[in-house]
Amino acid sequence: MKALWRLTKGKPNMISLGNGDPHYSLYPVKKIQYEVASAAEDIEDPVAVWTAAGPSTPTQLFTSSRDEPCNLSLKTALAYSAGAGLPEAQRAVTELTKFYHSPPDHISTLTVGNMDGVSKCFRLLGSPGDHFLADEFSFNALTNAPLSHGVNWVPVKIDKGGLIPSDLERIMSNWNEETQGRRPHVLYSVPSGQNPTGCTLNADRRKKVYELAQRFDLIIIEDDPYYYLQYSEEESSGTPSKLMPSFLSMDIDGRVLRVDSFSKIMMPGMRLGWITSSPLFHEHLVSLTDSSTQHPHGFGQIFITEMLSASGWQISGFDRWTRSLRKEYQRRRDLFLDIFAREVSSAGFASADPPQAGMFVWIDVHVRKHPRYRCDIRDSEGSIARTNVPELMEELFERCLDSGLVVMPASIFVAPTSPQVSKILDPEDPIQDRVNFLRTTFAGDESSMQPGLKILGEVLKEFFQEQK
Amino acid sequence: MKALWRLTKGKPNMISLGNGDPHYSLYPVKKIQYEVASAAEDIEDPVAVWTAAGPSTPTQLFTSSRDEPCNLSLKTALAYSAGAGLPEAQRAVTELTKFYHSPPDHISTLTVGNMDGVSKCFRLLGSPGDHFLADEFSFNALTNAPLSHGVNWVPVKIDKGGLIPSDLERIMSNWNEETQGRRPHVLYSVPSGQNPTGCTLNADRRKKVYELAQRFDLIIIEDDPYYYLQYSEEESSGTPSKLMPSFLSMDIDGRVLRVDSFSKIMMPGMRLGWITSSPLFHEHLVSLTDSSTQHPHGFGQIFITEMLSASGWQISGFDRWTRSLRKEYQRRRDLFLDIFAREVSSAGFASADPPQAGMFVWIDVHVRKHPRYRCDIRDSEGSIARTNVPELMEELFERCLDSGLVVMPASIFVAPTSPQVSKILDPEDPIQDRVNFLRTTFAGDESSMQPGLKILGEVLKEFFQEQK
Repeated sequence: MKALWRLTKGKPNMISLGNGDPHYSLYPVKKIQYEVASAAEDIEDPVAVWTAAGPSTPTQLFTSSRDEPCNLSLKTALAYSAGAGLPEAQRAVTELTKFYHSPPDHISTLTVGNMDGVSKCFRLLGSPGDHFLADEFSFNALTNAPLSHGVNWVPVKIDKGGLIPSDLERIMSNWNEETQGRRPHVLYSVPSGQNPTGCTLNADRRKKVYELAQRFDLIIIEDDPYYYLQYSEEESSGTPSKLMPSFLSMDIDGRVLRVDSFSKIMMPGMRLGWITSSPLFHEHLVSLTDSSTQHPHGFGQIFITEMLSASGWQISGFDRWTRSLRKEYQRRRDLFLDIFAREVSSAGFASADPPQAGMFVWIDVHVRKHPRYRCDIRDSEGSIARTNVPELMEELFERCLDSGLVVMPASIFVAPTSPQVSKILDPEDPIQDRVNFLRTTFAGDESSMQPGLKILGEVLKEFFQEQK
Repeated sequence: MKALWRLTKGKPNMISLGNGDPHYSLYPVKKIQYEVASAAEDIEDPVAVWTAAGPSTPTQLFTSSRDEPCNLSLKTALAYSAGAGLPEAQRAVTELTKFYHSPPDHISTLTVGNMDGVSKCFRLLGSPGDHFLADEFSFNALTNAPLSHGVNWVPVKIDKGGLIPSDLERIMSNWNEETQGRRPHVLYSVPSGQNPTGCTLNADRRKKVYELAQRFDLIIIEDDPYYYLQYSEEESSGTPSKLMPSFLSMDIDGRVLRVDSFSKIMMPGMRLGWITSSPLFHEHLVSLTDSSTQHPHGFGQIFITEMLSASGWQISGFDRWTRSLRKEYQRRRDLFLDIFAREVSSAGFASADPPQAGMFVWIDVHVRKHPRYRCDIRDSEGSIARTNVPELMEELFERCLDSGLVVMPASIFVAPTSPQVSKILDPEDPIQDRVNFLRTTFAGDESSMQPGLKILGEVLKEFFQEQK
């Protein structure tokens, strides 16, 4: 039917008795107005001004109207539209993507948020029995998504520099299609401030991973919601932020599907993001959208169109906001790490690397120092734990809960694997022996950092200093 | 992870360092305001007042704020939430559903619109190789959706009274699991103002279909976006509208998943709807939502929560709006049919039954009167056309296009079938011989009715009065 529409829309002055779209005069809405933070040029640090929140805090209005001129009229914003989104909104995110990534030859497709974007990529690229590659610790809600379509995961080792290219190479070189099925053709990775480990793929590895993708013909799903939250040396203002080069920026082959989101830099409940890909993938993503979620809601399309327009923040204001937000999160990170040093790591039972992006601190619990630690457990399969790290960590997690503290145990982030995959895992280094981490965040309520980390420090002391 | 959250949320005074939710103080939005039509008690016919649209047209404001009291604060509306939607929004649609359907024991799950709702039901209930039952003419964007999961369609005959129960019974009774695979366990149907035929399932058939569903253990997906647009005798005001009883209202077994939408009664770009089902299906729908679209956008949840609240329209105002809207569409329908009688049917080459609901007029082209009509074509398969109706209708469709008119040919709405299904189709009455219909609508721009139908009348005359 969409093809039929395209057929007819090429002709001028057609009269349509075809589509079941209610007429805009019957939409009961006349005006939608968002009162937002000002990101005007004279405000250098808009997030600081916003969070100071006095009665005179400057605001701006993003307005969409049915009758008055605006960037995206309610007449079209609240009508049905194509799967890719309204041209105005699509143009807005395309310009934004150009500004930060200058992709070679790509096109943006709107989504209803990051999860929708990633899960659509999974559906588009995966068939039952396929294996996808992923960071060995990954956000479980996402790695669970394609299991119901029969897609399996192959974990690639990560360290604080992100995904390890040599491990990726090892897996791809040693893959045996006869015993393991089709060789993986998709790599799913969160390159900045990875969830849950907080690690950021360094620039050198990004290049190497892209080269490996070329060599083994891998499609890369670049899931990058924390891209704008990269922390580094002082930045010079005026020029574009110094952010790590994305896979998209180096994608001369059209093998990258980059998934972007406003959730972490604006508000999660907005549920609007976008995928940037080659025109070929775009076309399929639009078809998939047309037969699943349909195009995103007009409300969010209005918001981003107005935000990025000349009467809104524009890209320059958006850039001021995200820089300022980086500063704010860097402050929170440093505050968290200070308290962590005082309350937790000083006792020597845990440590953490400062994350260079995102919201997560991946706490390394030195569980091998625990009096009940054992490393003499052997499993015939070779793929499950040879130590009692999982049991000790579960005990620690429960002790935290009993003391009133919620942290996320690493075990829940272990990417689920299939029997075919176990052959490729290192039997001397099973992931279950490396679940001695806790995911914590500095994104939440600031006032919970001190009491939360105090509890953690106390629980760890009690846990480690028990009598043998 | 959701299970873990449930575990921890039961405990009071927990401190969380767990979730990566940005703090609301960093959302750059302070207030969202929707200026909408008034549906106050003293306005009996709010749609008429609204479309008259003078400068003094009364409006109401639906407002959500970060700092001021409101029904759904931006603090929660713009945060992450559970897959079913925010409790406030979920409660709003639950109350609405109770008012119109009084379902026995059901619960509502928010969706990002009708297509999302229906396609989630398909994904939840269908496995590769399954057969679902559907009205023989169905909205193709929907029947296409589950094909990629390997679900096939079994068409059930319809007439102007909707789906024919005896045909459903015939299919189910004669199904042979050995040659045809698993017996269908799902019936997908649009009971009111069906798209594309405009037919409405009459009350007697609704009961019979539900009984057959009980007898053959069918799950019914009741896709009912035109429910509120049912046209009938004058209604008494004050009491709930006399609308056809839904499958949901009679669902003592929990076998109905009812899909509702605001698209046709408010605005399509809102992209917010809901599914009402048994608690068991609800639980699975929430899981599916958590790993695909996630919960719907906060903007729409604010809108419906405010709309149905005491400071908004309330259910009574919503009911006034939809009654008034019915009146408006009934007026449009009658106008369309008047013009149709004058410009088209008077010549005797086409006719149409007045639809009792929805937006569509299904024009019956009397193609058997065409000088080039043939009925002597035999196909060994028995399942494809024995006449040249498809060819003639395609020619007519193209002539319309060439004359500047877009109408939808019936052929594009034929539910796609599998080879296993062809055995159950009536070889003496293939659907391809019955594609002599055009879907037209009275929902669009009123000013296009007269010129559009004039073209149709002229094209039909030319087409039928050609020399043999």
